[in-house]
Formats: sequence, structure tokens, C-alpha cells
Amino acid sequence: MTKDTSNQMWGGRFAAGPDAIMEAINASIGYDQRMAAQDIAGSRAHAAMLAKSGIITDSDAKAIREGLLTVLSEIEGGRFEFSTALEDIHMNVEARLKALIGEPAGRLHTGRSRNDQVATDFKLWVRDQLDAAMGGVRALMQALLTQAEAGADWVMPGFTHLQTAQPVTWGHHMMAYVEMFGRDLSRFEDARKRMNESPLGAAALAGTSFPIDRHMTAEALGFDRPAANSLDAVSDRDFALEFLAASSICAMHLSRFAEELVIWSSAQFRFVTLSDRFSTGSSIMPQKKNPDAAELIRAKIGRIFGANTALLMVMKGLPLAYSKDMQEDKEQVFDAADNLMLALAAMEGMVKDMTANRESLEAAAGSGFSTATDLADWLVRALNMPFRDAHHVTGSLVAMAESRSCDLPDLTLEDMQSVHAAITADVFEVLGVHNSVASRVSFGGTAPEQVRAQVARWKGVVG
Amino acid sequence: MTKDTSNQMWGGRFAAGPDAIMEAINASIGYDQRMAAQDIAGSRAHAAMLAKSGIITDSDAKAIREGLLTVLSEIEGGRFEFSTALEDIHMNVEARLKALIGEPAGRLHTGRSRNDQVATDFKLWVRDQLDAAMGGVRALMQALLTQAEAGADWVMPGFTHLQTAQPVTWGHHMMAYVEMFGRDLSRFEDARKRMNESPLGAAALAGTSFPIDRHMTAEALGFDRPAANSLDAVSDRDFALEFLAASSICAMHLSRFAEELVIWSSAQFRFVTLSDRFSTGSSIMPQKKNPDAAELIRAKIGRIFGANTALLMVMKGLPLAYSKDMQEDKEQVFDAADNLMLALAAMEGMVKDMTANRESLEAAAGSGFSTATDLADWLVRALNMPFRDAHHVTGSLVAMAESRSCDLPDLTLEDMQSVHAAITADVFEVLGVHNSVASRVSFGGTAPEQVRAQVARWKGVVG
Amino acid sequence: MTKDTSNQMWGGRFAAGPDAIMEAINASIGYDQRMAAQDIAGSRAHAAMLAKSGIITDSDAKAIREGLLTVLSEIEGGRFEFSTALEDIHMNVEARLKALIGEPAGRLHTGRSRNDQVATDFKLWVRDQLDAAMGGVRALMQALLTQAEAGADWVMPGFTHLQTAQPVTWGHHMMAYVEMFGRDLSRFEDARKRMNESPLGAAALAGTSFPIDRHMTAEALGFDRPAANSLDAVSDRDFALEFLAASSICAMHLSRFAEELVIWSSAQFRFVTLSDRFSTGSSIMPQKKNPDAAELIRAKIGRIFGANTALLMVMKGLPLAYSKDMQEDKEQVFDAADNLMLALAAMEGMVKDMTANRESLEAAAGSGFSTATDLADWLVRALNMPFRDAHHVTGSLVAMAESRSCDLPDLTLEDMQSVHAAITADVFEVLGVHNSVASRVSFGGTAPEQVRAQVARWKGVVG
Amino acid sequence: MTKDTSNQMWGGRFAAGPDAIMEAINASIGYDQRMAAQDIAGSRAHAAMLAKSGIITDSDAKAIREGLLTVLSEIEGGRFEFSTALEDIHMNVEARLKALIGEPAGRLHTGRSRNDQVATDFKLWVRDQLDAAMGGVRALMQALLTQAEAGADWVMPGFTHLQTAQPVTWGHHMMAYVEMFGRDLSRFEDARKRMNESPLGAAALAGTSFPIDRHMTAEALGFDRPAANSLDAVSDRDFALEFLAASSICAMHLSRFAEELVIWSSAQFRFVTLSDRFSTGSSIMPQKKNPDAAELIRAKIGRIFGANTALLMVMKGLPLAYSKDMQEDKEQVFDAADNLMLALAAMEGMVKDMTANRESLEAAAGSGFSTATDLADWLVRALNMPFRDAHHVTGSLVAMAESRSCDLPDLTLEDMQSVHAAITADVFEVLGVHNSVASRVSFGGTAPEQVRAQVARWKGVVG
Repeated sequence: MTKDTSNQMWGGRFAAGPDAIMEAINASIGYDQRMAAQDIAGSRAHAAMLAKSGIITDSDAKAIREGLLTVLSEIEGGRFEFSTALEDIHMNVEARLKALIGEPAGRLHTGRSRNDQVATDFKLWVRDQLDAAMGGVRALMQALLTQAEAGADWVMPGFTHLQTAQPVTWGHHMMAYVEMFGRDLSRFEDARKRMNESPLGAAALAGTSFPIDRHMTAEALGFDRPAANSLDAVSDRDFALEFLAASSICAMHLSRFAEELVIWSSAQFRFVTLSDRFSTGSSIMPQKKNPDAAELIRAKIGRIFGANTALLMVMKGLPLAYSKDMQEDKEQVFDAADNLMLALAAMEGMVKDMTANRESLEAAAGSGFSTATDLADWLVRALNMPFRDAHHVTGSLVAMAESRSCDLPDLTLEDMQSVHAAITADVFEVLGVHNSVASRVSFGGTAPEQVRAQVARWKGVVG
Repeated sequence: MTKDTSNQMWGGRFAAGPDAIMEAINASIGYDQRMAAQDIAGSRAHAAMLAKSGIITDSDAKAIREGLLTVLSEIEGGRFEFSTALEDIHMNVEARLKALIGEPAGRLHTGRSRNDQVATDFKLWVRDQLDAAMGGVRALMQALLTQAEAGADWVMPGFTHLQTAQPVTWGHHMMAYVEMFGRDLSRFEDARKRMNESPLGAAALAGTSFPIDRHMTAEALGFDRPAANSLDAVSDRDFALEFLAASSICAMHLSRFAEELVIWSSAQFRFVTLSDRFSTGSSIMPQKKNPDAAELIRAKIGRIFGANTALLMVMKGLPLAYSKDMQEDKEQVFDAADNLMLALAAMEGMVKDMTANRESLEAAAGSGFSTATDLADWLVRALNMPFRDAHHVTGSLVAMAESRSCDLPDLTLEDMQSVHAAITADVFEVLGVHNSVASRVSFGGTAPEQVRAQVARWKGVVG
Repeated sequence: MTKDTSNQMWGGRFAAGPDAIMEAINASIGYDQRMAAQDIAGSRAHAAMLAKSGIITDSDAKAIREGLLTVLSEIEGGRFEFSTALEDIHMNVEARLKALIGEPAGRLHTGRSRNDQVATDFKLWVRDQLDAAMGGVRALMQALLTQAEAGADWVMPGFTHLQTAQPVTWGHHMMAYVEMFGRDLSRFEDARKRMNESPLGAAALAGTSFPIDRHMTAEALGFDRPAANSLDAVSDRDFALEFLAASSICAMHLSRFAEELVIWSSAQFRFVTLSDRFSTGSSIMPQKKNPDAAELIRAKIGRIFGANTALLMVMKGLPLAYSKDMQEDKEQVFDAADNLMLALAAMEGMVKDMTANRESLEAAAGSGFSTATDLADWLVRALNMPFRDAHHVTGSLVAMAESRSCDLPDLTLEDMQSVHAAITADVFEVLGVHNSVASRVSFGGTAPEQVRAQVARWKGVVG
Repeated sequence: MTKDTSNQMWGGRFAAGPDAIMEAINASIGYDQRMAAQDIAGSRAHAAMLAKSGIITDSDAKAIREGLLTVLSEIEGGRFEFSTALEDIHMNVEARLKALIGEPAGRLHTGRSRNDQVATDFKLWVRDQLDAAMGGVRALMQALLTQAEAGADWVMPGFTHLQTAQPVTWGHHMMAYVEMFGRDLSRFEDARKRMNESPLGAAALAGTSFPIDRHMTAEALGFDRPAANSLDAVSDRDFALEFLAASSICAMHLSRFAEELVIWSSAQFRFVTLSDRFSTGSSIMPQKKNPDAAELIRAKIGRIFGANTALLMVMKGLPLAYSKDMQEDKEQVFDAADNLMLALAAMEGMVKDMTANRESLEAAAGSGFSTATDLADWLVRALNMPFRDAHHVTGSLVAMAESRSCDLPDLTLEDMQSVHAAITADVFEVLGVHNSVASRVSFGGTAPEQVRAQVARWKGVVG
């Protein structure tokens, strides 16, 4: 039995036709036509298997498989007329197939139902999106790697609380995002592996008595194996939820970078200049460059996580196996996928195009006694001072510099020794932003050599 | 200044044209064309005011206002060609106006910007949805009132934990939903009052130096007053969020009723029969009636609250005044509004069409010693027994009935007196489901007279 | 019947005691003890009514009411031992009452159940939070009004896209938040009115046959009326959801202001100086002031909207009347309320303490040709130039100023006339940030007089 | 430099002490003390590494490491006094260490900061939860496997839309959940692998100039490697979000099963009897068994996904590296983890204890012509009838049976042949619920042999 028949098939049992409201709430063809290629691929694999298993004849299978190609070309060519009365993509394709090849079309649905069919179509669609997301993430990572390599030794402020904390390198900052997107890549990969089981042949929910070969259709469609439980196969939407969850985290990373780009583009920061391609201007205020693309990317997390919220809420508390509620899955995933891909592409474009303003970055990096920590660390390291004492001495020296409106490297050795006599001229080697970043050579630290090592490692992965 | 100019107006400042990605992420005309009527109404009001205030000439205003009507009729007639290059509905309308009437079109934008214009359009659109939601809720309440009135004295099980607790009346159960939807109505009303302030004339964010009359445009557009602070006027999306929040609670109510209808339609419950119009059948299993509409309504809460999540997340942490992130507001609200209206209409249709199976309801109401509480209450009331003691006596009588496989009213007076000697024949007046519900005459209780009073009261409001 | 009795009362029916897991998942006393005062107030009102209605004796009522006061004083004094075995606050109080006054305690539960009792307690608790939220919002608004009044004519940049757009006044910016919090106030007020109906006497779900007077208890507890449908009264959690929804929007407003404070406190902006009380420093970097309170306030939206998400998801699809799922309502609301009050108080403190850096604000306001719009508007107004032409002339003048590295007011009249001959010396009256803001006198505009009018109006409301 | 020092260390720079509000919003010791064991483990590993790397002396390291054990035993023994003034667990431990061992305590913080310290602590805590979740899921799966094995051939209705669709086996239904929880297991495993990188030594954000060995501390704490980028290491909360996302999907699965248990426990279904341990009764209604545990489990999805919502919203748009907003991470994850573990344990207990009512299940399985599909499939298979034609014949036979108030197997062969002459007696082999389920031998189908194969496979994994 199928996912219970379309309107056309209710025969005489339903006196009243579903009215306009019911059609509006019930029909999915308005959006599920996006799965036409997946639907046809699934049906072609199913037909080939039915013939191989002796359930239908080879000639029927041939007619079906060729007829489906015709339908696909009609759809791709924009020559297909979708009918709302036929409710969904499955019935639209099947009805057209019947018109094209006649009676054999009626044998295609043997040993399957709309329940496993829609699960198969949707899984194939989501799998394509996982691949697309991985492609988009990789391209963005490459753009970030290019920025990181170029600016492995450019200094900029490292912030905590949006307050300058310590100097870091531009490359180091870019590579932080490479790590984040690298985890996204890994999450999409895991999701793809986990979901790659074929629902086809689960039938309505219980499996079938036809001697079908689910391994054959699974293989033909690129699945690793058939799903192991037919009830679960038609009830499961984990694959969609996991895609949305992974996409939400990825969108969060994008939102953080987008926020930085908006702040960095402000007149007050001027850390980067975005390209004209990804910003909009004012007809009368020449210096104004609105970071529209960054703002829109920042907002996408709402949309994508909104879809995650929606689908999880839909699935909450649904008894097995199929419930019609689950028809609400597709539009959410379609919208989230479209917007994730768009955001990744726009971010990749922005990163490729953007120019770091090295002077602004370096000037900002050195402000606010950002190397005070380096001084304190030197006192600990060179003079074996306890950490907390070193902070006290540093505080006094910073106060001295502040009172003279100069920076720490501008103090003389005598100045320093007036606070703590054991200080030697070696101290100047750690002051100054370039010295500071160069010294942070601990694994994963901001020193240019560490950044270049990070770049090299990731290039091996996504380069 | 405008919301910073469309692509056409950047003049020579931007060497590179925005590429396909930027166009895809940036253009809103694909969806904001739904606000065409609101946009044109706002512009017509603005033009009239500009003339009245002496900022433009009467003849310019006349040309603008008539030209805009032409544009509207083109759009409504499907003869308007929307251009993605013109980004949004505002620029599409303005460009067409210019083509129609020439130079005066350039004076329309005096004293306003795209920022206050889009806020005005969107507010007018949401206000229409609030009205539509109130209409949909009222219609549903009327359908429920009809059911409640017809079944004011039909008994059914009152559940807690989906376990039979006490008998109630069908009308009482229907009226519980009337209360819920009555609160929804009230929330939509409050939201409408609160949001009914006009952003028009706030300009880009700071107001304007032109002597505009914001009270006049406010009145012309049905607003109660102009918004009091121009920065807030262009930054505010509370009205959209409050609509989504109220819609989410309404959708939650719908989901509870839909869940009940799904359960009540099961072969195990058979409490109601849904009409063919709002269910689908099986070509071979005649008794199977899938409550598709109820399931889809149940799912809508996900979608609507997903939109709420999305927009709140978008607005989180946005500095004043306008940020491009806010362009993500519309699609969420459009989708939520469409689905709320659809769910309300479908539920109204289902309620009108559904048939309560009185026999099943009454049989279920009496099962499980559902009047044990009535017995205990009688012991307290008639014999002045403490509440906890009355429970003990009742427990013993229930155990006696259970051991004899009969119900409480089937015990004899002697049986009862063997447990507690003071029990009199009056006790039988409270046993039995009809006696039980008839006795619950406390205000708001399930007694038919109370239900009829509730119906009468609400008919005065929404009847 | 009660909300089905605590473990102690199941008598012999349950052979096995609930084990540790069940106790852990089932007991609510760990948190619902926060409703002790509400629970006791409800019980005292109920007892008085039972006596007045002749259901219990006056002396029993007196014993109950005085005993409850004793229990309350024990709880408030920290001398009460809560028992997890007694599950919830209701049973803890009742058991203690019985220990104190004996048999009459058993008559308190007449004509009510735990279902209406917990609904009443929780409503009273939420009502207190609505009052507290209104108090917190008012106090914050007063702090903002003080800032606005002091700085009604201080100029600062008005941003769109975090790019300088036009000069505005500090007071105007503060008043934008007053508008937002004013709407929050209004939402809390509406929510309070809507929820102020008493569930008490709805009993388990069906009402009761005891001649109770629900109007009397409603009045005693400050409710406007009894809830009109007993099923709804025990099933309804709208009041909690509406509180969470209104709190989420309020938290969104807080997050926007908090974000601005974080950005404004950065070394790059230096628009404000936060007080030491609401920031933390570095032991060695004297100028570093981390805006901790602002960051934590910004984060609270997540927590509060998370609670909203949680409770709406819990309520999705619950059949009537009471289901145990609903026990998950309280912790969410408790946590959200605590954090909203904390965030409001912290924001009020920050606003009171913070210092606007007028020089930085003014300098930033004038950068970037922020008065170009004023120039364009002047051309339209004074020379009757069409809007789009005025933009062209302005663009040329800005380009001239940019090439000379000066601002618009620094150009001479001759410079100006070289671009457009009709320009007169009057133009200088609109250039310059003070002129600019002074000119924006449209209703709700940024001109100091408009700001002062806004302040005066709001002082009448919350001052 | 550290995550900026506690109040105690600000020296004289902050004239005013933080007041009560700031303390309330800022201090985390109220909850982060749950990470005490993790904090101390991290510090002990760090001290050992500092000594090995020659940064501190062996004797200092020894004093530190032993002192920390003392602190741990004080905390575990309940003898530790936590101080809110010391803000967090890190400062509380460090202060106590100083009191115990004096000056060497001051050397512990060399080469790290509170930023990497808290990230390490929290990661270790979340890793423990991932392990606990996997343990809880495995135990639940084992309970389901026991049920599935026992009932591999018990028939029950397979539902779509909560309408009987086809007979399935109890074991098959249980195994559907095993598949779901198997995916949860796999998601937790992937999350654990991905997150198992050590932040320790990332210092404040930039790494350090001390010659620390991050690989050594990583190994000591069971991490697979040190995190590769120090900025990312202190900014990353992906591990918490991924835990919450995986937990949300797991909670969704639990909610579906819980919903089924609530419905199955109703008087109308009576499919299962829950044990007294996981339900509550009524003092006077003996048959009433409220499925409290199931309802509470069903509700947990709200709480867990609420936490996911909260944390994702907190992280949205945060610039690198550490922002104080991130302090809001812990309570959400703590609460979600506690509730997930509780829900898993309660569900495991319920599944172990519950009794399937085989008679009710079998009776329900056979109602509603649930084997009509089998008949149709037989017509296709045995008579080579096209699928759609077979449906037509089946519909006629069902109509005949319905008119006689009998089931399909009760029709005679003559009856059948009157509709379609070619039908043979073999048809009776597929009718009847046991025949039906036995025939569904396709891979993953509901046939007992298929169910037993599923059980055997999973026993190999989690048995």
C-alpha cells in the first residue's frame, strides 16, 4: 500500500472533493518538484531492480526507464506542466509516465510506496546539499588560507571583550576561522556518512512480500546500504535535522566573521576595505560603504536555525510511522540549504576581495600597552619572578609610561630599573608588537612560523 | 538621504558591478513585491501631504498620485515587469512612475527615505495580517460555539494524562478552546493597537528639515499617530515579532486541538468522524481516514515559531538604526502569516464538518469509575466526612465494584452501607455520568447550564 | 479528585515504591518551593471562602488560616524542612499544616485539586514577575530619560549599517530606547490584564459540586474574575508563554543597547566610559575596561528566548486537560524571570553610571561628510531642485572637499558656486553637525527641541 | 595575561567595588563549581608539564600537585567554602591552593590564562557527558533489544497517521527505536572525536612565549591533540553546541516513544501496562495509571532544545576571541545534560518494566482490513495483475467483507472468485495478520526472521 493514495485514487469513497483550503494545505507539488531529478533516479533504480528480481519484465523496465528519462528532460526543459490536483512530485511524474508509456507505468509502484519513495527522494536531495555545503566550505577555507598566508606576519589587535588584549597576526585570525570551518566540514562529512542508507523498499512501513533486492537499489543510488528497519526508514528525518544542526553551527561561524567585518569596516576601525562588489554605497557620501553582504550573511543564522527549530518542533512527539506532519520538512530544508550556500558563496567572495588595512591594524595593535603581558612574562622567565609579582612590577611601569604619554618600548632602561633593579636591556627584545607576536611560538600560537605551519597543514586538506 | 541608493544610483563610484551572488543575496524584489499595494498607498499619502505642506506643487502631487494608481493597476493586473536589478519594490515602483510621469516622480522621495518607507509598508502589511488573523480566529470560534451549543449536554471523558479522570460535556471541551482562541483574539487586538504608529517621515533615521506633516500621513494611512522617535521608527521590528509571538501561541492552541482530533479519529478512540473534505482515504482500506488536515495544522506551530526564532535571532544585538540584516524580516513573517491563516481556515472547516460520535463518547465517559470523585464529594458534603476519609471509603467501594466487574451505580445501597453505614439512597443521585456533569455547577464548571452560559457570553462577543 | 495524589496517598495500590529515577524526574519541590507564599495565599483565600459558603466551619477555617500563616513564617524564616517524598510545595505545606492543626487540615482541599491549585500559584507568581518587570523597565526608562535630558543637544553619529549616515543627538538616541522599553512596558501591562483570571475552583478539570464561590476567592487574590472554563483553567499556560514572549522582545532591546555599549567602549570608538562598577579591568593594562555587564546582558536574550522555546515546545500538541509535561513550565519561567530582572537592573545601573565622551561623539559625528544630505536637502528646498539632481550636485561638492581633505563647511561660497551657480551663502546655515541636527524638526526628529518634547512626554508616564 | 583577573587583583584602579547587581550577574561560582574536578585535573597536568619543561621547579610542581589533591578532597568532602567574591571555580581553587602551599601557587598560572583554563575545564566536563550519554543510550538500546527479542513475532498495528495501516511485529517496532538511538550513539561518538582537542596552553588568546609542551598536557588529559589555533581554542564552543544538537535529536526520539507510551496506556488503546514504578495512581480510581514518567520524558525535548537555542543565540555574532557572553554557556549545558541523562534512565526503566498486552495488540492489528495490501500484492504477484488493477479488485473484496461485517479471511474462495475468477485458494496464505507479517521478508521488513536478524546485529554492537 502506498502513502495512501492521491486524490485521484480515492475512488468513490469520498463524496465531497477536497475544497480549496484542503488543496492549499495538503498539496506539496508547489515545492517538492525540486526533487524531480531525485524522484526519477529513484524510480529508475527501482525499475531496474524489479526486472533483475523477476518482478516485472525486462521490456516493461526498459519502457519505464526510458519513459522516465523523457519525463526528466521535459521537466529540465521547462516543458512539464505540474498539476496541483496530482498533489506531489511522485504522482505528477507517474501520471506523465503513464501518459507516455501506458500500462507498464502501473507496474513501477510494485514493492514500494510513497512513504519510502519520498524518504528516498528527500535523502538524495539532502545528500546533494551536504556535498554542496562541503564544497562551499572548502572554497571559503581556501580564500581564508590565501589571506592567512599573505598576512602571516601582519600584526593586528587580538581582542577579548572587544578590548585590545594582545597583538596577534592577521594570518592567525584568519586561521581561527579555518579551524571553525574545518569542524563544519567534518560535521557535514559525518552527517553524510550517517545518513547514507537507502529507505527504498521499506514500502509503506512494513517492508514487502515481493522478492525485491534493496541492496541493489541502494548501490545504484550511491547509498552505502539499505536502511535496516522499514518502520524507521519511513519515519526518520534525522538526516534533515542533522543537516540543519550542522548548518546552524556553520551559520554561527559565518555570523561571527560577518560581525567582525561590519565592525572592521566602520569609520572608527577601518581594519578592512570591502570590495565594491559586496557592499553598497551612497550617492552623495563617497566614503560610505555599507557592508550589506556581511550584514545579510550575519542574519542567515536566524533563518537556518529557525528552520532547525521548525522541523524539530514538527517531529516532537510524532508516533510511528509516517504522519502527514512530516510533509512540513521540505520547505524548511530547502530554504535553509539555499541560504547556507548563498551565505558561504558570498563570504568566500568577500574574503577573496577584501583588503586588510595594514597600517590601521598595526597601529591599533600597539595601542593600549598591548605588550604589557610580554613584559610580565619576561620578568617571570628572565628573573624567575612569581607571576603575581611580575604583574605588580608591570603595572608600575605601565603607569609610568601612561603618565609620560608614551608606550612601554619608549621607556629607558634606567626608567625600568628605577622600578625593579634587576631588569636588563634584554627586556626590549620582547616589547613592540612584532617582537610580541614573534615570541608566541607555543603550538598553535600567533607567531608567524606557527601560522605558516597551520596554513601548510590545512592546504594539505583543502588546498 | 535614502536607505542608501540602489545599484543604479551609485554612479561611477563602484567600478565593479555587483555580481550574481551579491544580487542573489541582496535583492528583495522576489518577495517584497507582496507589499506593492502598501507601498503605493504610503507614497500616495506622502505625495498628498507634500503638496498640502507646500513642499511640492499640487499638479506634481496629482501626477504622482494618479501615476501610482496606474502602477498599482499594472501590478494587480499582472502586467508589471519586476526587475531584480532595481532590487526592491520601492525602486521598482519609483522607476515605473518615472517612466509614466517623468520629472515629478523625482520629487516624491522628498522628506522620506527607503528606511521609513519600508517600515511603513511592512507595518501596513502586518496590520492587514492582524486583521485577517482576528477574522480567522473569530470564524473558528463561531464554529466551536456551534459545536458547543449542540453538545452542551453530551458527555465525554475528561482526561488528565490521557487517562479518564471525570466526565465532562462535549460543549465544555469545545468552550475550553473558545477561551484559548478568545485570548488569541485579545492578543492580536493588543498587538494591533500597539503597532499602529506611522514611521513615515522618520526619513533615513534623523527626521527631516522639510516641513512635513507626519500626522497627516499617519491619519491617511489609518495609523493612530506618527511614531515618536525617528531612530526607533526605522529600527523597530517589534510589531513583526509580536505578531509572530501571538501567532505562535495561537498555533500552539491549534496544535493541541489537532492532536486531539488525530487521537479521537483513531480506530481505538472513534470519538469523532472527520469529513471527507479534510481527510484522505486509502484506495483499498475503506475505513481508513487519514486526518491529514489535522496533522498539517499540528505541524504549523513549528513553522510559525521557527519564523519567530529566526527574526528574534536576526534582531539580537543589532546596533541602531537600520542594518541590512533587517531585510530578512519579511519572508519569515509572510510565511508565518500565510500558514497561520491556512491553519485557522482548515481548522474552522474541520470543526464545522466533524461529527461527534455520541455513543463512543458516552461509553468512554463512564468507564474507569470516572464518578468516584462524585461519590467522595457526596460523602464530604452529605456526611460531613473529611476529604481524606471520604477518599478511603470511596476506594473501598471502587474495589468492591471492580471485584464484581460492575460500575459504581450498579452497587446496591446495602453494598454501600456495608462499607459505611451512614450512606443513604441519595448517593445514587450523584453517580452516573449525566448526574456527575449536571452536578458541577460551580462557575465555569462542566454542567450543561454552565456551558450554555459560556456560549451565550461568547456569542455576544464573536457571534 | 486531586491532581492525583502524592506517593503517600496511593495506599496499597502500588506495590513498588518509585525508585530514585522516578523521584528525580517527578518531584518538583526542589524548585516549586519558590511559590510557597503564593500557595499559602491561595489556600487562605480558599479556606475563608469555604467557611463563608458554609462548606466548612468558621473554626476550621480559622485554624487553617492561622496554621498556614505559621507555615509561611517557618518557610520565610528558613525553619521549614522540605521533603522530596512529598513531591511538591502543595503537599509539603498541607502535610505541615496537618501536623500543626490536625484534622481540619483535611478539609482544606474540599472543592479544589492540585490542578487548579498549581495553576493559581503559578499565575500569582508570574503576576508578581510582570509587576517586577514593569518596575525594572520603568527604572531603566528613568535612567535613560536622565541621559537624554542632559544630552539633548550633544551630537553624535547616526549610523546605518554601522556607517556614519547623519548626525543625531545623544538624547535622540537615548529616547529611541525609551520608545522600545515603553512598548515593553505596554506589553507587560497587557499581559497582566489578560492573565488576571483565577483558576481556583476549577478543581481537577470539571468544576465541583460544592457550592463554592469562585468570585470571592478571585477577588481575595486580586484577580479580576474567575477563569470562565474549568478545563481551560487547568490546561492554560498562555500567561507563562506571553510573559516569556514579552520578555524575549525586551531582552532583544537590551541586547541591542548592550551591543552598542560594547562597541562604544572599544578603543576605536571611545564614545562612552563605563563605570568601574559595571566593568572589569586588567591588573596590568590600565586602559582596558572590559564591559562585562554589557556582554552578559547581551547574552541574556539567549536564555530568555531559550525558555520561551522550551515551554512552547512542551505545550505543543498536549491534549486537554492537565498533562504532567506541564510541570516543566516553572523552572523555565523562574530562570527567565530572574535573568530578565537582573539584566534590567544591571542595564539601569550602567546607564546611570556611564559617561558620554562628548568630544569623541562630536568628532565622529562630523566625519565622512555626514551633512551631505543636509546640503542636498537645502538644494531641493532653497533652489527647488529635483531630489535626484540635488544628489548629483552634492556628490560633486563632496568630491571637491574630499580632494582637498576638508569638510563641506570648509568650502568657500565660490567653490560651491563653481559647481552650481545658484548656491547662496545661506547654505552654510545647514552645514555643520549642530546646524544639521537643529534643522531636523519634523515630529520625532533629532532636533534638540524634538528630543526635549519626547522627554517631557515620557516623564509624564514614567517619571 | 589572564581572562582579566578577578576583583581581588584589580589593585587600586577601581575605586568603587562592584555592587550586588554586578556580583549577581558576573559571578559564576554558583554553578561552575560543578567543574571542580576538571579544573583540578587540568591544573595538575599543567603543573607537571611546567616542571618537565623547566619552567617551574620539580618541588614547586610537587607542592602544587599535592595541594590540588587536597583542595579536591575538600570539595568532594563538602568541606570547601566557595566564595562569590572570588567569582569562579578557577579563582576559588587557586586562592585555596595559595592558602595551603603559599608562594608556589603563584607559579601555577604561568603560560596559561583563565580563557584556556575554562575552555579546558568545560571541554572535559562535556566529554564526560558525551560518555554518559553514550552509556545511557546503550542501556536503553539493550532494554529495547530485550523487548524486541521477546516479541519478535507478536503482531500489532503498524500505524500511519495514527490509523491502522498494516500489521507489524512488536519486535519490529522496538527495533525502529534501536535504529534511532543507534544513530544518536553514533552522533555522540562523532562529537566526542571532533571535540577531543586540548585548549590548554592557548593562554589568553595568542599562545605564550614560555616553552610549554601542549602535547604533553593534551595527552595527560586524554585529548587526542592540542587545539591547533590559540584564538579558536578560547573562542570555540562548538563542542557544547554539538552536544546540545545531538541531545536534541535524541530527545526528539525519546519524545516520540514517550508519546506512544502515553497513547498506548490510555483506556482506549491498552497496548501496554506501565509499571507502578514509573506511573502514579489515583487514591480512588484504581485503574487510573498516569504515565507521569513518559509525559515528563516527552517534555524534556523542550528543555534540551531550549538550551540549544539559548547557546546558539548567545554565540551569534560574537567577535573573536573571548567575550563574557560565553559565560552563559555552562548552565544551559549542565541543565540539558542532567535532563538528558534523567530522561534516558527513566525511559530505560520504563522499557524494562513495561508489559505489552499481546491480546490487545493482536486484536487491534487485525482490525480495519489491515491485510488488504497483502491481498493486493498477492494479486500482483500471483496473477501478474498491474498494481492499480489489483487495488481495484481488493477494494471490491473489502467492500464485500465490510457489507457482511466480516474480515477478509472470512470470505470464501467463491466470494473471491465472484469478484475475480482467477483467484485461487493460495490467497488465504497471505491473509491474516500472522501470515501478513511473516510474508514481509524484504531486508528490514517486519517478518520475525528479519526482526531477529536486526536484534542479532545490534547485540553485536551494544549487547
